[in-house]
Amino acid sequence: MLSYARIVSSQQSAVDAARAYRNANGPAILAEFVELLALPNVSRNLDDVARVADHIVEMLTARGVEARVVHRAGTAPVIVGHYGVADATTTIGFYAHYDGQPVDQNDWQVEPFKPTLISGALDKGGTEQPLPLGDEGVDPEWRLYARSASDDKAPIIAICAALDAMRDAGVSPSANLLFLFEGEEEIGSPHLPHYLDEMRNELAAADIWMICDGPVHQSRRPQIVFGVRGISEMEITVYGPGRPLHSGHYGNWAPNPNMELAQLLASMKDVAGNVTIEGFYDGTQPITETDEAAVAALPDTDDSLRTELGIGETEDGGTALALRLLLPSLNIRGLDGGGVGDEAANVIPTRSTASIDIRLAPGNDPEVMIDRIENHIRAQGWHVVADEPDTATRRKYARIARVARKAAYPGVRLPTDSPLAKALVAAASVAAGEPVLAVPTFGGSVPLHYFTTVLGAAIAITPFANHDNNQHAANENIRIANLWYGIDLMAALMTMDLPD
Amino acid sequence: MLSYARIVSSQQSAVDAARAYRNANGPAILAEFVELLALPNVSRNLDDVARVADHIVEMLTARGVEARVVHRAGTAPVIVGHYGVADATTTIGFYAHYDGQPVDQNDWQVEPFKPTLISGALDKGGTEQPLPLGDEGVDPEWRLYARSASDDKAPIIAICAALDAMRDAGVSPSANLLFLFEGEEEIGSPHLPHYLDEMRNELAAADIWMICDGPVHQSRRPQIVFGVRGISEMEITVYGPGRPLHSGHYGNWAPNPNMELAQLLASMKDVAGNVTIEGFYDGTQPITETDEAAVAALPDTDDSLRTELGIGETEDGGTALALRLLLPSLNIRGLDGGGVGDEAANVIPTRSTASIDIRLAPGNDPEVMIDRIENHIRAQGWHVVADEPDTATRRKYARIARVARKAAYPGVRLPTDSPLAKALVAAASVAAGEPVLAVPTFGGSVPLHYFTTVLGAAIAITPFANHDNNQHAANENIRIANLWYGIDLMAALMTMDLPD
Repeated sequence: MLSYARIVSSQQSAVDAARAYRNANGPAILAEFVELLALPNVSRNLDDVARVADHIVEMLTARGVEARVVHRAGTAPVIVGHYGVADATTTIGFYAHYDGQPVDQNDWQVEPFKPTLISGALDKGGTEQPLPLGDEGVDPEWRLYARSASDDKAPIIAICAALDAMRDAGVSPSANLLFLFEGEEEIGSPHLPHYLDEMRNELAAADIWMICDGPVHQSRRPQIVFGVRGISEMEITVYGPGRPLHSGHYGNWAPNPNMELAQLLASMKDVAGNVTIEGFYDGTQPITETDEAAVAALPDTDDSLRTELGIGETEDGGTALALRLLLPSLNIRGLDGGGVGDEAANVIPTRSTASIDIRLAPGNDPEVMIDRIENHIRAQGWHVVADEPDTATRRKYARIARVARKAAYPGVRLPTDSPLAKALVAAASVAAGEPVLAVPTFGGSVPLHYFTTVLGAAIAITPFANHDNNQHAANENIRIANLWYGIDLMAALMTMDLPD
Repeated sequence: MLSYARIVSSQQSAVDAARAYRNANGPAILAEFVELLALPNVSRNLDDVARVADHIVEMLTARGVEARVVHRAGTAPVIVGHYGVADATTTIGFYAHYDGQPVDQNDWQVEPFKPTLISGALDKGGTEQPLPLGDEGVDPEWRLYARSASDDKAPIIAICAALDAMRDAGVSPSANLLFLFEGEEEIGSPHLPHYLDEMRNELAAADIWMICDGPVHQSRRPQIVFGVRGISEMEITVYGPGRPLHSGHYGNWAPNPNMELAQLLASMKDVAGNVTIEGFYDGTQPITETDEAAVAALPDTDDSLRTELGIGETEDGGTALALRLLLPSLNIRGLDGGGVGDEAANVIPTRSTASIDIRLAPGNDPEVMIDRIENHIRAQGWHVVADEPDTATRRKYARIARVARKAAYPGVRLPTDSPLAKALVAAASVAAGEPVLAVPTFGGSVPLHYFTTVLGAAIAITPFANHDNNQHAANENIRIANLWYGIDLMAALMTMDLPD
């Protein structure tokens, strides 16, 4: 393994080059970005996204990247690019997406595909600045407003600018670079697994994929995020009488499905909020001391969140949110049986349903987690069925639960104590000029596991957009200081020496 | 107390008189009933019901009853009638209602206010018989179709015919008779308590009120029902985060209100369905050996109900429905928190609500029963509030339950082993010519407690309509055999010697 000093030293040159280049060429970088942002890119408009893809291939080619569009009929194309480095024995992959969320002009204060420079945040009195810029330079507190300014065309311009800067300064990447930009992320990446599978041999060259997407920490401090959760879903329906019964004539004789469901659900968690289902946490990637230290180093927002949200006590006696996300969760997202309020009727309902989502930590198999819950239901004395039971079946069993299963995909996470994670934090910290936050995982579910399960590579999320970028909403923007940090970050990552 | 032999003997004369009278005067009785049924009586049509009331006063007056209309402005009037008996020291009250449910002509096969005689049930091929009838007599399997033919003008004609029969035969009632017929039963008797209170001194003369309403047992056997349940309602809302939270980013940190509600509700009943709330059953009028014997003598329909309804096991290990109704119940009529099915979203909901109805047995105070549940909630560590809690309150307490209370009214029940209950069963059995069923209570809630709480009298429900009379629906009817039994029953009850 390379020494930390050597790593930092090679990245410092690249970051210095990036800073010098953007100081000298700020208006030109923004001009090229404005040209990219002006191209409409709503995921489902296939003609639009194809045009964006062609444009990006031209941008990459201009930097000496061997880039091409790969297109499966009826889908948004992906862009694949190779940047070979003599004598390099490792490869670093960069993933981004060039498609954006739909726009409703009525909600926007500017035009979403006419990029507009504003002297700050629009909702804090920022005013429009003329484009194109002259030689007077760019204020880092200015913001560029347009759809995908942050999410997720920003990494593409940052990569191009970093390559320009390194070329000008004669700094070479430390590894071969591999680029993969997709055009369907905002509609759930339905074809990404097919593209990955199709190009498996070519893309498997990367030792790690940098997932260039998302914002910095809400404290404004830069962060590297080492994982995402997976997800499974299920719905449990339990049964009462075959037709709604008058609760006077049959109450405390006919079983009440709401009460039986309550008893079943209550058996799944203790009062502290920990899951009591046998084996639920088995196989979960362990929480290490490094994870705990990384979480301890994060700005502590738990208390302010509790106050803002009116939460008396959080689960597990107040354990930090960032640590809780390293475990699988069992969330009853919906309960429904009979009516409440004005819809309440004095009946014993025929059925009661709970809808559940299970967030998966790495090590939790999506099917097995549902199996464990089903086994728990059986262990409580229930007869589990997959289809709507008929009257005879309902007569036969005292307690019947119909379980609808939807196992989606697993989570993935690079251990924070791995040499790769440490190298990433070191590289990003050079770009940030301060120690960046090492976040063990996002709580949300994103199917990044494909990079691991299909391509055999590690992943890390390397975001740089401002946290208040209005991602997915109207008035999306990027703060120039964040874009500058993004260029520096890309340069630092490109010159990272991967540990063996 | 009078001997059973004497009681039965005096009633046998009255029942014999009733049978002789209706054998001789069937067409005339039906003709008078047709006239009464032809008068529209939908509760909210105040002009219509006032006309019916005047007509009934005329009918009673013709039998020597001192009858009058008592009218509070803006309500349907009540009819009060006195029939004094020389030397009588006790008074028997007869309650019925002369109003009926709304009608939708589209649903009827005959006209609801043009009484039609049919040679059986309309849905079993019965055909129309000409009216008025000649001397050829009446087949007891025929049915008279009209709104309120059973519910509840039938008792009024039965009372008049019984009085005629006894007068013709020289049989005198054993007690003073008091009649109270109301006109708002089908809309919940909103003004009955006011009328009772207003005439408290006059109506308190009755030692017992016969509630002349409803059908015989579904097995077709005549029944006397000795009670009804009361009711209280409540809604429990528990709280999660102040806004819906992404279940990935906050799942297993922010408390889930659905799970907390499930745990709270599960603590209220054991798996057999018995309530585990401290004191819940305290003070309930005891179930006696006579009650158990009366229930054991009822036709056993529990098993066929379980099969029809697809119920695997009923509560309390299969205890008879009729016995379970002698206890208060706790029924979760509705559950709602977040969405299920297509409405499921991956969030931690802000709240979860359970709507509950509590059927009350005699001895259960409507407010106290809610207090007991509230106390139970507190004992589980919850902070109970009456109004929507603000964010600061929600921050302060780990578990908050908002309880909305609606204490309605208590149940009432004449113990089956009381001398009065035994006398009633004996009298009705003379009319029926077989032992009638003694049903300890109806499961449903009806505010009959007013007769006890306001007037200090016992009540018993003395139904005689056929069980398939289409009460409240289209094609309401009464089977002639049931009307004849009704006349006999009224004669038997009027000559009942009340125990001291």
